[in-house]
Amino acid sequence: MQQLIFTNEVKPALEGLIAELNPDRVALLCDTNTRRIAEELAPVRADIIEILPGDENKNLTQLSRVWEHLSTHGFTRRSVMVNVGGGMVTDLGGFAAATFKRGIRFINVATTLLGAVDAAVGGKTGINFLDLKNEIGAFQEAVAVIISTRFFATLPPTELRSGFAEMLKHGLISREEIYRRLLEFDIVNADLEELLPLLEENVNVKREVVAQDPREQGLRKALNLGHTAGHALESLALERNHPIPHGVAVAHGMLVEMILSHMQAGFPSAELYRYAELLNRAYNDVPTITCSDYPALLRLMAHDKKNTIPGQINFTLLEAPGTVKIDQTATESSIQTALDLYRDLIQV
Amino acid sequence: MQQLIFTNEVKPALEGLIAELNPDRVALLCDTNTRRIAEELAPVRADIIEILPGDENKNLTQLSRVWEHLSTHGFTRRSVMVNVGGGMVTDLGGFAAATFKRGIRFINVATTLLGAVDAAVGGKTGINFLDLKNEIGAFQEAVAVIISTRFFATLPPTELRSGFAEMLKHGLISREEIYRRLLEFDIVNADLEELLPLLEENVNVKREVVAQDPREQGLRKALNLGHTAGHALESLALERNHPIPHGVAVAHGMLVEMILSHMQAGFPSAELYRYAELLNRAYNDVPTITCSDYPALLRLMAHDKKNTIPGQINFTLLEAPGTVKIDQTATESSIQTALDLYRDLIQV
Repeated sequence: MQQLIFTNEVKPALEGLIAELNPDRVALLCDTNTRRIAEELAPVRADIIEILPGDENKNLTQLSRVWEHLSTHGFTRRSVMVNVGGGMVTDLGGFAAATFKRGIRFINVATTLLGAVDAAVGGKTGINFLDLKNEIGAFQEAVAVIISTRFFATLPPTELRSGFAEMLKHGLISREEIYRRLLEFDIVNADLEELLPLLEENVNVKREVVAQDPREQGLRKALNLGHTAGHALESLALERNHPIPHGVAVAHGMLVEMILSHMQAGFPSAELYRYAELLNRAYNDVPTITCSDYPALLRLMAHDKKNTIPGQINFTLLEAPGTVKIDQTATESSIQTALDLYRDLIQV
Repeated sequence: MQQLIFTNEVKPALEGLIAELNPDRVALLCDTNTRRIAEELAPVRADIIEILPGDENKNLTQLSRVWEHLSTHGFTRRSVMVNVGGGMVTDLGGFAAATFKRGIRFINVATTLLGAVDAAVGGKTGINFLDLKNEIGAFQEAVAVIISTRFFATLPPTELRSGFAEMLKHGLISREEIYRRLLEFDIVNADLEELLPLLEENVNVKREVVAQDPREQGLRKALNLGHTAGHALESLALERNHPIPHGVAVAHGMLVEMILSHMQAGFPSAELYRYAELLNRAYNDVPTITCSDYPALLRLMAHDKKNTIPGQINFTLLEAPGTVKIDQTATESSIQTALDLYRDLIQV
């Protein structure tokens, strides 16, 4: 099983891992944002490969550049790649490693909260293709992931909030007490020391889910909580040229899906109010939607990659915090009702 | 485990498989050589994707075209791809399927002997990159492979001989009686009805080896018998603008490695003469090598992808037909001696 290391002493942890793996060559992959961290962490004689940052650069052109570097600099099946960055770097770098010479070992060093809690663990690697997110990729786990809150101090507040939304999701789909502890945490004025143990229990939730269902055939679908509605909100905002961060969209998508859970699975209404209060406090910067946006939102939900049966919109629903029901569907009119309630709850 | 179907009734076999898998969409991948077969086999409403044939087209450009077709024609995770062709089509198509939406199911229909015995089974998929063979790829097995001798009647004799060399290899690394039966078979005037049961036992050898070691960490290395010397002979011939088919090069490479086996592992000399007789009869169209070629051959062997420790040349050796020793090394001077003996045995 994948090694997960929670530490703020990242350099010695990485050195120890590399010594264990005993590779012939090491490459560190970073983007322009994480170059300095990569330089600080790089062992003597490691190559540093820098790519452009941002989801718009998670593409075949940059993937080919990474393959080309590995090919032309003598990397072998015994080499190791270290992906230093957020989800974009670990997704692209993981896929490059998974496919170079049919697969070399790789380590992820998560430098963002969203990356730590979402992308670095779980084995989903890949790139966007023809503007479709993660259209090309592979399931391949990093041999080890290093997670530290040390790099988060300089992150923009939005990145922290986005990552925290994924943490909330992990609480909701696993154990009520984890979710309760997160509701009590102040993400707007985050104390990073206090965050580390919460992050550790949280990433372990994800790891357990993935270990039980590595190929997303059952339980792992629970990780999609909030994502069907969230992706639709995110795509709509993008179409209107007011992009919102993925994690913020998911935070709102979770409220929509909690409402559906209330309507279809008995999720308690008191929890809706409690969660909406958190959204209004920490995630109140999303564009207003009106009922004239519903057709576009429904269209976007219907196009979600997880809908394998045409005409049905799939959701992960909750009976209560900590208790999930996967493979649920909702009708268009239920979703419209949920969107009405959502708009009431977030006071728009 | 992967389903292996040996039949000359290919169309109903494929229809049965597809009915079992119950996909939402089916794409058949072929090259210009196998287009007619693909059209004959295609179920109603299946897409046919045609790529250019030949190892020189097993590249990222054509892979992207396949991804693009799947992306823009509504293929989902529930879709199935059917690769109809030789190793080039099953390698590229298998990799396209293994990475589209992080992996969809695929079936291989082998239309060449080499493809049937080598590429279609075993889960090695990939493309060439920067002129390096199979530099980018993944280990992913087809859910099913259909093998028929029906398509071999129109193949050039060289393709049959190439495939037969791989069959000999499977005999040599598994069971003496399999190898003996092959030595008695006349591949120059091949009876395809007689070949089918030999092919079935042979492909099953490969499947057993792969099942025991899917990621090539131990036993599977036995499948490299003949390939270290064979690749060097193949590359040298290519550098001299007298390309020889891969299988023919491997047939000769196996003699070189049998001689090393005789020198280092007690492989019986009588077997060398028996095998050399087969080469002189069925594989006598390779360019002459002289001792002035030795430095180039040694250089090429040293660059083989399987050499993970610099300065050592790895080989799979044989104690006897059916008994392998993996992870063996040989010195340059032993290899030179083996090449001397090889030249004597093949009468050049």
